[in-house]
Amino acid sequence: MRTQVAIIGAGPAGLLLSHLLARGGVESVVLETRSEEYVAARIRAGILEHSSVELLESVGLGSRLRAEGDQHRGIYLQWPGERHHLDFVDLTGRSVWVYGQTEVQKDLIAARHADGQEIHYEVSDVSLHDVESDQPYVTFTDKNGLICRLDALYLAGCDGSFGPSRQAVPAAETYEKVYPYSWFGILADVAPSTDELIYAWHPNGFALHSMRSASVSRLYLQVPNGTDPRSWSDDRIWEELSTRLGHGQNGWKLNPGPITDRSVLPMRSYVQTPMRHGNLFLAGDAAHIVPPTGAKGLNLAIADVALLSRALVASLREKNPALADRYSDDAQRRVWRCTHFSWWMTTMLHVSDDPFDAELQLSQLRWVAGSRAGATGLAENYAGLPIGY
Amino acid sequence: MRTQVAIIGAGPAGLLLSHLLARGGVESVVLETRSEEYVAARIRAGILEHSSVELLESVGLGSRLRAEGDQHRGIYLQWPGERHHLDFVDLTGRSVWVYGQTEVQKDLIAARHADGQEIHYEVSDVSLHDVESDQPYVTFTDKNGLICRLDALYLAGCDGSFGPSRQAVPAAETYEKVYPYSWFGILADVAPSTDELIYAWHPNGFALHSMRSASVSRLYLQVPNGTDPRSWSDDRIWEELSTRLGHGQNGWKLNPGPITDRSVLPMRSYVQTPMRHGNLFLAGDAAHIVPPTGAKGLNLAIADVALLSRALVASLREKNPALADRYSDDAQRRVWRCTHFSWWMTTMLHVSDDPFDAELQLSQLRWVAGSRAGATGLAENYAGLPIGY
Repeated sequence: MRTQVAIIGAGPAGLLLSHLLARGGVESVVLETRSEEYVAARIRAGILEHSSVELLESVGLGSRLRAEGDQHRGIYLQWPGERHHLDFVDLTGRSVWVYGQTEVQKDLIAARHADGQEIHYEVSDVSLHDVESDQPYVTFTDKNGLICRLDALYLAGCDGSFGPSRQAVPAAETYEKVYPYSWFGILADVAPSTDELIYAWHPNGFALHSMRSASVSRLYLQVPNGTDPRSWSDDRIWEELSTRLGHGQNGWKLNPGPITDRSVLPMRSYVQTPMRHGNLFLAGDAAHIVPPTGAKGLNLAIADVALLSRALVASLREKNPALADRYSDDAQRRVWRCTHFSWWMTTMLHVSDDPFDAELQLSQLRWVAGSRAGATGLAENYAGLPIGY
Repeated sequence: MRTQVAIIGAGPAGLLLSHLLARGGVESVVLETRSEEYVAARIRAGILEHSSVELLESVGLGSRLRAEGDQHRGIYLQWPGERHHLDFVDLTGRSVWVYGQTEVQKDLIAARHADGQEIHYEVSDVSLHDVESDQPYVTFTDKNGLICRLDALYLAGCDGSFGPSRQAVPAAETYEKVYPYSWFGILADVAPSTDELIYAWHPNGFALHSMRSASVSRLYLQVPNGTDPRSWSDDRIWEELSTRLGHGQNGWKLNPGPITDRSVLPMRSYVQTPMRHGNLFLAGDAAHIVPPTGAKGLNLAIADVALLSRALVASLREKNPALADRYSDDAQRRVWRCTHFSWWMTTMLHVSDDPFDAELQLSQLRWVAGSRAGATGLAENYAGLPIGY
């Protein structure tokens, strides 16, 4: 097989890249180790930045998002006794949308199917070869057991932090931070008890009330690393969420409901640089992981492939390699902005056992909620800087 | 001896408090263990916030400040290859003044002398008694060896973190953070090489170019804790300052000169709460210490005594104890704002050996310098929130 760009990974980064390349007149083939059903169903992020929505819309992926997604003007920031609304639209003219990554994935799959995109699911033994040469290629075993070779001009590693692409960038610099806590996340079949997300600081630990739809709530609790999600009863989960989110304060009520999914997510941050090696380019989780606070992971992957698709189209169609040469530097600027913002939101909201830190956090929260500059700083990072920042 | 308010400590906090009380018609006596010459000469902070200048001016202490001080519109923030000016006046309508604490101290001494203020210097064995009762008093040995007793309605502890007042607040909550680095500070008889302060991030460590006057420069280097200031030659100091401050970059030059003072200052943060116990009130360093980054220490002491003087005047002259009852809570709000800001500036600018942290710092610096919200956030904290915040 031969194509212009071999894309490894059919998550949102890989499929969106194939979509953007196709619109730019560049052909690609996508390889994915999982099944189409698996990637369409896995539960991940749920918040799209202003720029992500604009991009998806501009390439024909916005109709269901606009119809079924939920535009939010901002978030609530709270600590015991106080809840403040930060109105991003008022502060920055930008909003965010609640639209699950699973929905983005379904839209991408539908669009790529409609376009006749070649995607190989359930492949194995994916291996990248000669990435430093002008003739890079990928070998893999297809779902029928056939050993295949895919030759390409460029390889795009969109296969996450455990995929083979990241490993094919030798001697890269890596930066990592592991946080001493995890998120215990649940999905519940109950209408959200809030119109917009509530980020809550509490002495017991951080809590977040998010949502997936008008009838599905998504909630998170800060828990110690290593917490077994099966070790908490449903009652204990709702009780702790009620405490941290302030059930009963100023008449606000948290509505419990049947829990349909539970998982514990460790919090870590990871950045690999450069994001290019020879003719292999990394995008999304293959190059960086952020903790979920601030909802940057999916948006950063979208911003990466927006840059990467422009760079590859310019190189392949216009024979102009300038954007490809700059891709890693251009992408890294936003990667570190989002990495810093995610760190900032995380460390402002998650409690440690140091009472000094708790007072710093509360003072910072009061300032962010009370100062227009403070609120705007959060808003412009949360609602997202323009793509290309 | 008997007075309305016994003030322990004749630094800026104690003398300004006596000055403000006198203007409000309340009598005080000040006790100080050091000599007048010592307190007038000790080198401390050098930057006055907008609100501090307004307050000093409004109580007749602004004439020399206006004549000899130097108004700064902002600061420079720099990292290798880039220097950015943050214009506080443009961002917030507020400025700062370079005017040494020694000068504030001299103005206060002159004003209190002119007013006939009773100040006992070189006292010893200061001890606070019955602070929980309506008849608190202080005992001390005066400079002639005479054992004295000073009865008062209120005691004001303005005697710093090593004085006896802090010890007289039992079982108080204390919060402390010790930073793993110190500031190596020098005074040099050379015109400053910059019109406004330069805060410099550098892989070797933080550096700050400050000044005392048109002919005296004040410079600082981040050094490991325990550094002996005598262990560095003058040449080594200027060489390291040149490297970190970017001598030679874009034509900028650091002018060296004779070093007249050198010291190493450990960086720590400390907050004690509450700031009142019975009829004893704490103000300034007796209640809190901040690291010097951001120049909050002296300004916070001024804000404390502004609140405290109002509270004591209201209580003693108008028999209204409401402000005195709220003093600790009111003061703590600003204390934590400044403690957080000092921590924020410190951790943004001082390097550790973690490369992840370095990238976070650089991303944060780029954002602060490049985003109006980011720059305004720094500016409004640095130029200072209104007294009473």
